[in-house]
Amino acid sequence: MKLLFIVLDGLGDRPIDELGGKTPLEYANTPNMDKLASLGMNGLLHVIGPGITPGSDTAHLALFGVDPFEYYTGRGPFEAAGIGLEVKEGDVAFRTNFATINNNGIITDRRAGRIREGTEELVALFNGMEIDGIKILLKAGTEHRAALVLRGEGLSDKVSENDPHVEGKEPLEFKTLDNSYEAKKTAEVLTKFVLKAKSILSETDFNKKRKEDGLLQANYFLIRGAGQVPKLPNFEKEYCLETACIAGGGLYKGVGRMLGMHIIEDSRLTGGTNTDLKVKFDITYKALQDYDFVFTHIKGTDNFSHDGKPVEKAKFIEMVDKEMKRFLPDNIERDLVIMVTGDHSSPCSFKDHSADPVPIIVYSKDCRKDDVEKFGETYAARGNLGHLMGKDIMGIALNEMRLVHKFGS
Amino acid sequence: MKLLFIVLDGLGDRPIDELGGKTPLEYANTPNMDKLASLGMNGLLHVIGPGITPGSDTAHLALFGVDPFEYYTGRGPFEAAGIGLEVKEGDVAFRTNFATINNNGIITDRRAGRIREGTEELVALFNGMEIDGIKILLKAGTEHRAALVLRGEGLSDKVSENDPHVEGKEPLEFKTLDNSYEAKKTAEVLTKFVLKAKSILSETDFNKKRKEDGLLQANYFLIRGAGQVPKLPNFEKEYCLETACIAGGGLYKGVGRMLGMHIIEDSRLTGGTNTDLKVKFDITYKALQDYDFVFTHIKGTDNFSHDGKPVEKAKFIEMVDKEMKRFLPDNIERDLVIMVTGDHSSPCSFKDHSADPVPIIVYSKDCRKDDVEKFGETYAARGNLGHLMGKDIMGIALNEMRLVHKFGS
Repeated sequence: MKLLFIVLDGLGDRPIDELGGKTPLEYANTPNMDKLASLGMNGLLHVIGPGITPGSDTAHLALFGVDPFEYYTGRGPFEAAGIGLEVKEGDVAFRTNFATINNNGIITDRRAGRIREGTEELVALFNGMEIDGIKILLKAGTEHRAALVLRGEGLSDKVSENDPHVEGKEPLEFKTLDNSYEAKKTAEVLTKFVLKAKSILSETDFNKKRKEDGLLQANYFLIRGAGQVPKLPNFEKEYCLETACIAGGGLYKGVGRMLGMHIIEDSRLTGGTNTDLKVKFDITYKALQDYDFVFTHIKGTDNFSHDGKPVEKAKFIEMVDKEMKRFLPDNIERDLVIMVTGDHSSPCSFKDHSADPVPIIVYSKDCRKDDVEKFGETYAARGNLGHLMGKDIMGIALNEMRLVHKFGS
Repeated sequence: MKLLFIVLDGLGDRPIDELGGKTPLEYANTPNMDKLASLGMNGLLHVIGPGITPGSDTAHLALFGVDPFEYYTGRGPFEAAGIGLEVKEGDVAFRTNFATINNNGIITDRRAGRIREGTEELVALFNGMEIDGIKILLKAGTEHRAALVLRGEGLSDKVSENDPHVEGKEPLEFKTLDNSYEAKKTAEVLTKFVLKAKSILSETDFNKKRKEDGLLQANYFLIRGAGQVPKLPNFEKEYCLETACIAGGGLYKGVGRMLGMHIIEDSRLTGGTNTDLKVKFDITYKALQDYDFVFTHIKGTDNFSHDGKPVEKAKFIEMVDKEMKRFLPDNIERDLVIMVTGDHSSPCSFKDHSADPVPIIVYSKDCRKDDVEKFGETYAARGNLGHLMGKDIMGIALNEMRLVHKFGS
């Protein structure tokens, strides 16, 4: 028996007047999700815990049974792993942007004009550099983004960022967040690196050319999201499942990679609102032949929430629903366990994450189905699963797969 | 957005034949609470945990998100803080009664005839006294009650009480509850203090006068409820909410004060069954202009439970309901988040606290309302909130207030 786990990012929402007091999920016409809900078990999922608003990183750790309170150190490691920078336990990883700084030391653009091309060439100037015995690893991500890793002895993630988060200001100083020697050293290395990088970047032909072309120079690094790379449980070993991770966003791939999942790389897998959902689910369908467990992440729902667009969110959910038809028990020969949920709620009225629980369906052919007939926040509250914690759902899925790990004898 | 948190002490109850098999809350005519229930989310609250019967002190810690298993050491510190005795971390605080002891060393009245007047004068005799380098702080409470604090190095709360809890017996010896040097020292200081106090109290003109007037002398201290003052989280700093505590009972004010809340002192705020509820809610209404979070505690419900009077409990609930009308969304301009619950159940049939969960309403204008239409134990069990733990509700309230503290990014 195989497991398909579909996560719609930021799925959960709140009643919205514009939708007649329904949530986008309740408002959407979702015959296939409704079919699954009616054949399966429904509940409300507190991804980290009741009243706790999850970040995207902590949420996914929790969904995979990894306690974020124990393992989460910061977003850097997952972003770095997501773009394929191989991180090692003890490394301190950061998210970084190419930015534009002017001669007066003012950040004039936090994203260097959303530069798209040429950042691989720029990071190559620094990759492998050593500062005070600490090795610098740098890898370009999408657009202006890159991941920075410091590798060596005596580092710490207890350092603040240099990103002022607004333009027209100087970059911030790196500050230590505790009194440790390690934090002090890390802040010093970062300070030296940023200074050195500024002078190197400004001298590149690449940036001179951008200047001539009237483009913003990529001449500064804004660095944030420090996290010391934790030793995470290996997902495949822990659960004995060959696992595929199908996602667009780097963060989700990073979490998967750090948990030992196989990342399916395909340039058509993007994490936006206009992602090709047919392709994503074609790849998912195929992965179910090769893997025991397929995790498919869909980002668009959350994007519409952040933009405060409930009707568009509902329409997007309908597009996802359409692609899910092929996995319904009548349409697939294989015995599948299917879980559908969100990583957190993102009410369109908040335009941000919230602590509201997300609805979840857990389906298997002989599960204890309840009388919920539609997939939605209100309906799920009456389902057989009741209120669940994120950390519990892998165990529940494994039980449906009959992969029993008895505790005791 | 502001938060109004109304706690009816000992609200939860059990079906009672006399009330046609309803609980006092279900039996009571409560149109306003029912309106809130129908507009809001309902659930059952296990204040400390399922099957755990809360005390009043531990219950309120849990309701404010402070784990009593980690922070609770005894009732003394909260009682002391409640009557305005400023306690410091490390102090050991006790509840004490003025009692009457006869010449044979027998306690003849545990409350010195429920003495009402003159105890300030008596405590002044001891306040600041030193015994074995330990400072004695004493402050009179209502009637025969006072708070005792020991301040100094090497103290412990691992000491038993000297209150025999019945009259006609000698006071008990203070015993150590562990083998520590600190417990031994504390028991010795208490023993010396009680002996010295007995001789000083007996010699006062005050007591000589009481004797002449045929009144019971206040010539002995019965001491109980030892607790070393813990370092509690500061509520206002933790949640960034300016908070008002509106309560009659010293304990509730003590918990509030120790958590850094602003205590609204008003002599009309009493914690009994005949408390002026209109005044209490007038003060609450006004406090909502000045504070982000107003906690209003109502004690009468619990008193009727302890006396085993379900009809009177229901009538009292109706009186509270009437005063709540002004906070309903149609009657107040401000956007309010409202939580209504109890600190524990006190079934009239138990005449004491029980581990039964208490019903809770959480209302905000765009919350995920459920189809519960009345406030009550049985109805709440079908609400969207499911079963909650006390420690979670502050997070849930903050979420409704859109005061998002994202964990992760």
